[in-house]
Amino acid sequence: MNKIIVVLLAFGLSCQHVFTQVDTSGFNLMPWPQNIQHSNRDFTITDDFTISIIGDDAQGRVEKAAIRFLRHLSNKTGVFLKQGFPVKIEGKTSAVVELTFDGLSDLSINADESYSLNVTPDKIEIHSKTDVGALRALATLLQLVAHNPSNYFIPGVVVNDAPRFVWRGLMIDSARHFQPVDVLKRNLDAMALVKMNVFHWHLTDDQGFRAEIKSYPLLHQKGSDGLYYTQEQIKDVVAYASDLGIRVVPEFDVPGHATSWLVAYPDLGSKDGATYTIERNSGIFDPTLDPTNPKTYEIIEAVFTEMAALFPDTYFHIGGDENKGKHWNENKKIERFKADHGFKTNHELQNYFNVKVLDILKKHGKIMMGWEEILQDDLPKDVVIHSWQGEASLTDAITKGYKTVLSRGYYIDLVRSVEEHYAVDPFPAAPNSVSKEQLKNLLGGETTMWSELVTPLTIDSRIWPRAAAIAERFWSPQAVNDLDGMKRRLKVISFQLEDFGIMHIRNKEVILRNLINDQDISSLIDLSNICEPLKGNKRNTKINGQSKYKTYSPFTLFADACVPDAQDAEVFNKAVSGFVKQSNTADFEVVMAFLNKWSTNYAEFSKINNNPKLKDLEGLSKNLSQLSQLLVQVFETKSMDVSIFSELQTHHKSLYVPFADTEVVVVNALEELIEKAKVDYLIKGSRW
Amino acid sequence: MNKIIVVLLAFGLSCQHVFTQVDTSGFNLMPWPQNIQHSNRDFTITDDFTISIIGDDAQGRVEKAAIRFLRHLSNKTGVFLKQGFPVKIEGKTSAVVELTFDGLSDLSINADESYSLNVTPDKIEIHSKTDVGALRALATLLQLVAHNPSNYFIPGVVVNDAPRFVWRGLMIDSARHFQPVDVLKRNLDAMALVKMNVFHWHLTDDQGFRAEIKSYPLLHQKGSDGLYYTQEQIKDVVAYASDLGIRVVPEFDVPGHATSWLVAYPDLGSKDGATYTIERNSGIFDPTLDPTNPKTYEIIEAVFTEMAALFPDTYFHIGGDENKGKHWNENKKIERFKADHGFKTNHELQNYFNVKVLDILKKHGKIMMGWEEILQDDLPKDVVIHSWQGEASLTDAITKGYKTVLSRGYYIDLVRSVEEHYAVDPFPAAPNSVSKEQLKNLLGGETTMWSELVTPLTIDSRIWPRAAAIAERFWSPQAVNDLDGMKRRLKVISFQLEDFGIMHIRNKEVILRNLINDQDISSLIDLSNICEPLKGNKRNTKINGQSKYKTYSPFTLFADACVPDAQDAEVFNKAVSGFVKQSNTADFEVVMAFLNKWSTNYAEFSKINNNPKLKDLEGLSKNLSQLSQLLVQVFETKSMDVSIFSELQTHHKSLYVPFADTEVVVVNALEELIEKAKVDYLIKGSRW
Repeated sequence: MNKIIVVLLAFGLSCQHVFTQVDTSGFNLMPWPQNIQHSNRDFTITDDFTISIIGDDAQGRVEKAAIRFLRHLSNKTGVFLKQGFPVKIEGKTSAVVELTFDGLSDLSINADESYSLNVTPDKIEIHSKTDVGALRALATLLQLVAHNPSNYFIPGVVVNDAPRFVWRGLMIDSARHFQPVDVLKRNLDAMALVKMNVFHWHLTDDQGFRAEIKSYPLLHQKGSDGLYYTQEQIKDVVAYASDLGIRVVPEFDVPGHATSWLVAYPDLGSKDGATYTIERNSGIFDPTLDPTNPKTYEIIEAVFTEMAALFPDTYFHIGGDENKGKHWNENKKIERFKADHGFKTNHELQNYFNVKVLDILKKHGKIMMGWEEILQDDLPKDVVIHSWQGEASLTDAITKGYKTVLSRGYYIDLVRSVEEHYAVDPFPAAPNSVSKEQLKNLLGGETTMWSELVTPLTIDSRIWPRAAAIAERFWSPQAVNDLDGMKRRLKVISFQLEDFGIMHIRNKEVILRNLINDQDISSLIDLSNICEPLKGNKRNTKINGQSKYKTYSPFTLFADACVPDAQDAEVFNKAVSGFVKQSNTADFEVVMAFLNKWSTNYAEFSKINNNPKLKDLEGLSKNLSQLSQLLVQVFETKSMDVSIFSELQTHHKSLYVPFADTEVVVVNALEELIEKAKVDYLIKGSRW
Repeated sequence: MNKIIVVLLAFGLSCQHVFTQVDTSGFNLMPWPQNIQHSNRDFTITDDFTISIIGDDAQGRVEKAAIRFLRHLSNKTGVFLKQGFPVKIEGKTSAVVELTFDGLSDLSINADESYSLNVTPDKIEIHSKTDVGALRALATLLQLVAHNPSNYFIPGVVVNDAPRFVWRGLMIDSARHFQPVDVLKRNLDAMALVKMNVFHWHLTDDQGFRAEIKSYPLLHQKGSDGLYYTQEQIKDVVAYASDLGIRVVPEFDVPGHATSWLVAYPDLGSKDGATYTIERNSGIFDPTLDPTNPKTYEIIEAVFTEMAALFPDTYFHIGGDENKGKHWNENKKIERFKADHGFKTNHELQNYFNVKVLDILKKHGKIMMGWEEILQDDLPKDVVIHSWQGEASLTDAITKGYKTVLSRGYYIDLVRSVEEHYAVDPFPAAPNSVSKEQLKNLLGGETTMWSELVTPLTIDSRIWPRAAAIAERFWSPQAVNDLDGMKRRLKVISFQLEDFGIMHIRNKEVILRNLINDQDISSLIDLSNICEPLKGNKRNTKINGQSKYKTYSPFTLFADACVPDAQDAEVFNKAVSGFVKQSNTADFEVVMAFLNKWSTNYAEFSKINNNPKLKDLEGLSKNLSQLSQLLVQVFETKSMDVSIFSELQTHHKSLYVPFADTEVVVVNALEELIEKAKVDYLIKGSRW
């Protein structure tokens, strides 16, 4: 469902039941395993490193995973391995890594992903019940790789691990901005690194119909601007995911969010005589499939039949969200239909629609999944309710006996901090009315990447690295909840994600270079490291009733280079806190280093300030520089007269305004510094 | 053909006939157009910018190009265009850009790509004979976009342009290291930006068979490690290229370079009873198809039949290079066959083979192309000879009346400087025996990207930006040959290429970060900016008869982060030259700035020097720092005693050694500085 109306309440679902906290120091693992013990008997990586596979690898998953592992290992360590491929153990010969698994995963929600891993100086033993468990073990093994000045090694450990939840998903919206196959594949690779196992693929919405439909080709031909996945490409993505032990759940959002269906088939719409064009704005729109028109079900059946054949997964997501029913209310035929069937509300009419769709899915052996709006009492109990708005729907669904997946709290497109998402536990502070048995209906969670404001250039930095912390929330024990430990590990994982092809780090400078071709971007880098894109729905304001950003607007702006959890802001804010609260000298030095750096920002910025795209940043650079200069002066001279204090306040106030669709996330820390300067150094007499 | 034995002779083909030089200042265009006039009456870009298309765009090429243009324009300027798609002109309304073309290109070697472009303050008019000409005009228009402090604009110009050569190619070797579809697509985009029009796709070699063959699936199944293009993907790439006005010429290299064919079908090999595995090394190998075995032609026919249907282009490249005939000589049956047919040499036997292959191609209406080794007198005159070794083959082919494409001098995988390639003109200093008429047989050139040492992570930086300068050599008049002008424009084009998705800039830091995760890479950046990968074939040395680098070796090393035309070296070397020859003060300041920066390199490097991968760089950092410190001291004190001179020489000498497969390309400039210091400041008495 669309984020536009999502209000992320105060993340009230956090882990109130937790009394313990796991120590996550020592290794850069994410998600943290259920159980890990350190032996100090490390394994040194040399060019003799080999892997052998013991088990019936009928799908080839483990072989492929082992090859990928060897490439990553070699790329990471620089070791020229003698054996670039898994080896066969014969007679007396043995391999360094012996990877044993008992059988194949069916990639269902009941599939086993557990594994054990034993690293000793001579040998690394992996055992798992399924091939997918072996993949999870290799992901852990790769994250364990460490080095000292002379060698790369794998620390001696014994790991016994299994996931907390069976459903650990990432949703990518390919509809609002099309995301080519390579974007999906690199994100699947990254998902596998952090042991996520469900790719929820949002394939249609008002802004695009992204799947090739052979029986009704006008759907993708007219509804996509030519940006759609061929059926071959869909098969390729599904197979790629399967190789990584990732299920793919497709979503075709009906009956609302369906403008793109209607471009080719306006007759399916609920507004009489209307014609439709692909939606270019963001928001919630009125075009809705007509549930009273038999042809609607014909086309849905055709689409779902073709898609059911491509997606082997049991679950099929029908969306079902945010249908406001305006066109239903305005259509006399539909009103009559409601009256004839005794439907008092549009919700009842949509229930009627859902049941018809359910029947279509059943024919193909699929289980229906939908956003929480589809919940109604007469649905079969295997339907999965996708909770996105709040506790109420989650509690409602699980107490009624429906399987549920939680996305509320995991809307990463809203560019909030990783802390906020990490604090959300899928097991809510459930009311007493919810039994332990009922809680089992909560399958897990999904983090959602809606794509109103992202393109292939920026989507990675909106997903990663935050999704890795959410993946930990879905995999690791509830007691793994140490914020500092998570942040420390996340920094390392962030670089691993880069090695896996994720573009979140490298594309920042690409965007800044694009802003001012062929000049020194250092002043922009410094600004971008203390600014974050406007959060929630604040960036995409409405102008004359339309969203500021269309699908074809530029997403190569300063705000697109900025990311949540801005890196300098994190360090600066922490140092200010330490300095203000405990007068810590080391913190003071960090604070002064930043202030000194920012003092010269405007001088640097001015050298490149010959470009209309920088206009909105001038105030930021100038005020930040001047404020920093004054603060340095105050803390160095240990004295501040009232005119300086007033000047500081003026500059500071100006930094509260958004600059180029970003907010300056050091403003509160700067305020604390000014406040401290006032208390410590303001010359009283000078007030007069 | 394989680069291993390529000796790039002294680029003797340079432009001896040129007496004029075109002034290429004023615009950042590459390739430089045939004719451009500046009116100073600029067009200002606002949100009202629109494009309309006048012409029968039956292939949709111009529509798609116009949409891409609008996205690039918006991304570049930050302007929120009101119209994200081309508009229709009706009645009195008109569009800003009116793009008129007369007909459709057939994408043949006779197709017209000329265009004219007229920019005035109110209107931009484009006219071309074909839709592809319109694409070339839009590429020029995009490169013209400029800005002042308040606006983006397009300079008032009149351009009349057409290519010098009809064949302007880039060859990518997908065999030795597989290059996924997204790598090819972004390179096709980049080719279109610089008006290249032939993608030569090297699809098979000893190290991989990369095309799905439905009639003989074991070819790709056993010969590719699973890394091959499906026929759907091939169609997709060909269609993508066609949209960009780029022809695709496939190459299936036979009868040599064919190990990967033999993995599945060892009986086709020339060595009795042999079995084969995919080759993991680089080099020239003995496995060769057996030209005496009828089954060889059956399989070739099957492969070529399937491929001919996927590649609409008339030309089909059969390789034909570097067959040493060892296995032929060792096979009695083949020796007998030669005797029976009266073939005295293996060349005659290969001619026999070529004629059989030619017949297969003819059946499908294809014209044969091959590396120069295929040249023989009885081939039909429409065969294209691909000259890669030198002038002799080129002259030979064109005087015999064969069409010819030149690649000698354009082997960009050898990581030589852009200057060297730019100086090679396809029209050689032809002997008097070559007539003007015969010179017409020279269709153009191709730059070749062999992939022994590149992966998808690094291939872009090995192709770009140098290929853009070569593209200019193929498109622009011969008199466009000002080196400084080319280099100045190339810097800007390099950023445009980045905006087109090319990864050559961004992936440098990715590799350096990979070397030392999560630490400060600034000292490594500075080193990488004065080091270039070992050139020619020097990097991939032989160890125990095998190439150092296998296909599965790491390509995430320091040398992979380094690029030809190292950016700091360019600036430093030029400044040293100006300082030494003319005692230029500005140059002296640049020199001192670099020396001061390098002086601290080792101190910075030491902070991160806790990693086995940095071992090979320590000597570089240390000697560079110490040498720089001493030189700074000498030039500041204007005095040098003999012990310092001797120390300088020691450090300098140590920089001649390769470090981590790179060479330090400031050594000559440093030597000049030391020499100057000796002449100016060496204290004579101190010699004793």
